[in-house]
Amino acid sequence: MSSSHVVKRLASTFTQRPSPPKGHLHFPQPSSTFPKGYVLTGLHAGVKKVAEKLDVAVILSTPPDGKPTAAAACFTRNAFKAAPVLVSNDILKRNGGYVRGVVVNSGCANAVTGKQGMEDAWAMVRETDALLPASASTEGGKKFEHETLVMSTGVIGQTLPISKILSGIQASKSTLSSDFSAWERAAKAFMTTDTFPKLRSRVFTVGGVEYRLAGMDKGAGMIHPDMGPASTSFSTPKQLHATLLGCIMTDAAVTPRSLQSALMYAVDRSFNSISVDGEMSTNDSIYLLANGAAAPQNSVPIDEETDPERYEVFKKELTDFAADLAKLVVRDGEGATKFVTVTVKGAPSYKDAHSVASRISTSALVKTALYGEDANWGRILAATGSVPLSPSLTTGEPTVIDPTKVSVTIVPADGTAPLPVLVNGEPENVDEDRAKEIMTQEDFELLVDLGGLGDGEAQYWTCDFSYEYVSINGDYRS
Amino acid sequence: MSSSHVVKRLASTFTQRPSPPKGHLHFPQPSSTFPKGYVLTGLHAGVKKVAEKLDVAVILSTPPDGKPTAAAACFTRNAFKAAPVLVSNDILKRNGGYVRGVVVNSGCANAVTGKQGMEDAWAMVRETDALLPASASTEGGKKFEHETLVMSTGVIGQTLPISKILSGIQASKSTLSSDFSAWERAAKAFMTTDTFPKLRSRVFTVGGVEYRLAGMDKGAGMIHPDMGPASTSFSTPKQLHATLLGCIMTDAAVTPRSLQSALMYAVDRSFNSISVDGEMSTNDSIYLLANGAAAPQNSVPIDEETDPERYEVFKKELTDFAADLAKLVVRDGEGATKFVTVTVKGAPSYKDAHSVASRISTSALVKTALYGEDANWGRILAATGSVPLSPSLTTGEPTVIDPTKVSVTIVPADGTAPLPVLVNGEPENVDEDRAKEIMTQEDFELLVDLGGLGDGEAQYWTCDFSYEYVSINGDYRS
Repeated sequence: MSSSHVVKRLASTFTQRPSPPKGHLHFPQPSSTFPKGYVLTGLHAGVKKVAEKLDVAVILSTPPDGKPTAAAACFTRNAFKAAPVLVSNDILKRNGGYVRGVVVNSGCANAVTGKQGMEDAWAMVRETDALLPASASTEGGKKFEHETLVMSTGVIGQTLPISKILSGIQASKSTLSSDFSAWERAAKAFMTTDTFPKLRSRVFTVGGVEYRLAGMDKGAGMIHPDMGPASTSFSTPKQLHATLLGCIMTDAAVTPRSLQSALMYAVDRSFNSISVDGEMSTNDSIYLLANGAAAPQNSVPIDEETDPERYEVFKKELTDFAADLAKLVVRDGEGATKFVTVTVKGAPSYKDAHSVASRISTSALVKTALYGEDANWGRILAATGSVPLSPSLTTGEPTVIDPTKVSVTIVPADGTAPLPVLVNGEPENVDEDRAKEIMTQEDFELLVDLGGLGDGEAQYWTCDFSYEYVSINGDYRS
Repeated sequence: MSSSHVVKRLASTFTQRPSPPKGHLHFPQPSSTFPKGYVLTGLHAGVKKVAEKLDVAVILSTPPDGKPTAAAACFTRNAFKAAPVLVSNDILKRNGGYVRGVVVNSGCANAVTGKQGMEDAWAMVRETDALLPASASTEGGKKFEHETLVMSTGVIGQTLPISKILSGIQASKSTLSSDFSAWERAAKAFMTTDTFPKLRSRVFTVGGVEYRLAGMDKGAGMIHPDMGPASTSFSTPKQLHATLLGCIMTDAAVTPRSLQSALMYAVDRSFNSISVDGEMSTNDSIYLLANGAAAPQNSVPIDEETDPERYEVFKKELTDFAADLAKLVVRDGEGATKFVTVTVKGAPSYKDAHSVASRISTSALVKTALYGEDANWGRILAATGSVPLSPSLTTGEPTVIDPTKVSVTIVPADGTAPLPVLVNGEPENVDEDRAKEIMTQEDFELLVDLGGLGDGEAQYWTCDFSYEYVSINGDYRS
């Protein structure tokens, strides 16, 4: 730090570049790209004060032949899990991976709300169950007691205005639809500090059959999820807080076991690879439904063990799609003015590459440098060097980075030439004008090559750290 | 997040409370409280541009009987270690824990400077060696080739203006002194973005004999050290960056082995328990010299194995003193307006308590809430719950927090009543006026009780996250 910097510190002159508007990231998508066999809606039930703000979403799977819909979930690994997380995990476990409904509220996280919170989450489930058409068939002839998963996001330590929410769920019946506007309403009902609804759809092909994926998610702050698969071991009920929620639907048919395995793979490479502020929430949840409505005549669901080829294609499509949804959250990060891809390669393993990318993506010094549009590779190296790597599998010795083999490159998103700033540990004589040219753009990539420790490679998506983030979170409750 | 907050996000109105002046934390201390047998100075050699800014410190141990001075060090665990770190570790190893000099420069970190950097660090060592009086005795009759440790802090990727620094070291001879003003000059030469010199001294008693400790440190940003003991296994020479530096001197006599062990214990509970921004530097170093000048007649140095009683007293005094120095760094944290103690108890182990306290202390959401003077215990819980705890020693099963047993209390520093905000997992009906009363003060404590998982307890010291931090680090190099 130069002495002129000391003077600058004392002067404390603030300039700000506000987060640019993101409205263009929401746009109409053709109905033909949305999965068949789903009806949904979003409405204002009264959780949020402002009447125009939607706060309850209902999503029902209604495949024409009434067969069960496979479901999978990834939940936060936080020790303080919110009531909807515990209830949804319970239902998924009881049903062996089948549900037909999802109900979501924003505005209140139903977290640290004790027994009342659990009762309220169950009440939302029951009210949504009542909207479902009678099930023509159930798995192994067994009737499911509950068929709805629940999610909540918003303020914590407050109980839900449950009667308003239940009335809202009841009233939703009349507006349930498969139109684009219904998908849009549902996506809007997920929002908290989000500045636009996050909704995407796409068509893909597996084994010559056309399927569709659609999904919505929300999140802007408290974003650094680490979600594990739906599981049988959860801590006791009493918990907290809100942030990353997502729900993905497909009209492919997939077995529950394979759906869960594909979702975990996809979430690791999408939602578990983003950071706005390094904060893991207690409500983070991603749900995935697969109702087989695309090709009812094809009665063989995709399965990892019996049909690995179709499964791999599905898993890849799902991963790409989940990454698209996850990136929308980073783009809408609280105060974010940059969208930065952090790629780490040459690590001993994927896990090591992921850890280093995560550390760079959460570094306050890296993120303030991104805001300052400053090619400060020193901060990138310092963050990189602070991560302990896995010990060598062959010798058991700690893996040590060789600084003389590490390279850092800034890669513009516009296809023009990448700018190496450190090559094999030697600082390049960087053209600062060119660096500025790249970094004043909204999108670019930081590529860190650890120099041949292995073929581990991972990507992370992060944003910058701005005055606006401090402003948004410095007086959250006031 | 409430819907009114969405509106607030879009409005983005910024209010700021700048970091208050900290000059009162530097004050004269009586010469009698400084350890005997040290001369030192600080001067402007020309690394920094502004002529009034001191940038080179020289510290020599000159005990009256000329006996060797024991030395210990803790260095950053970052994979990218700066040249002065590598050179100092090498000397300490060669000498078996004896040195008599320390030389420090600020303004340039001598990091990522390749072979030239290593040569420059060695040149600083040799130039300072030349200032030392001939050694009357050496350890085991062996003459040491080098007897100086070196530290650098400042900008990275630039080589030192080495001839200016060497001239400065030479010129320092005429101003070496044991006066308070000499200690002050040395402390000033450590500074980079620090707003005041960090210098403390104290008198303590071990076994009826009076000893003294004095120390200086620096740091304001890139502060989240994790330092290990001086060691024989370091990565290859090529490295980077700058921040926490400290040097502590005592006139007690301590064996090198016990000095190293006491320093590691103290550093874990002081410098390794502070965070300004969660960033581990590549230059973090703490040195400790013990020259035995207080009681030359007492020829038996303090030793852990042969004299555990005296050793424990010394270790405790050293730990308290190191914590005092470490806290000064947090007080001067870049943009800091709050000084917050984070105490975690009821954890399975000290290590677990330390991990949880560290996570809370680095959470961007907790730290922006501190800036906003907002008793947002939800963010504290979310951070707490995101830390995986050690598995049980008896069963090997993962230790799981029971949310119904967790309590959070805000403890004012003024001795008035603590304010419980969460008791056994139940949110208290918090008196928000009282919460505000406590949190508008500069100092307070966040106490998190994990509820009897064990007797692990640890403290961390952190500051808030402000606009000013973003300002300081958003255009560091421009």
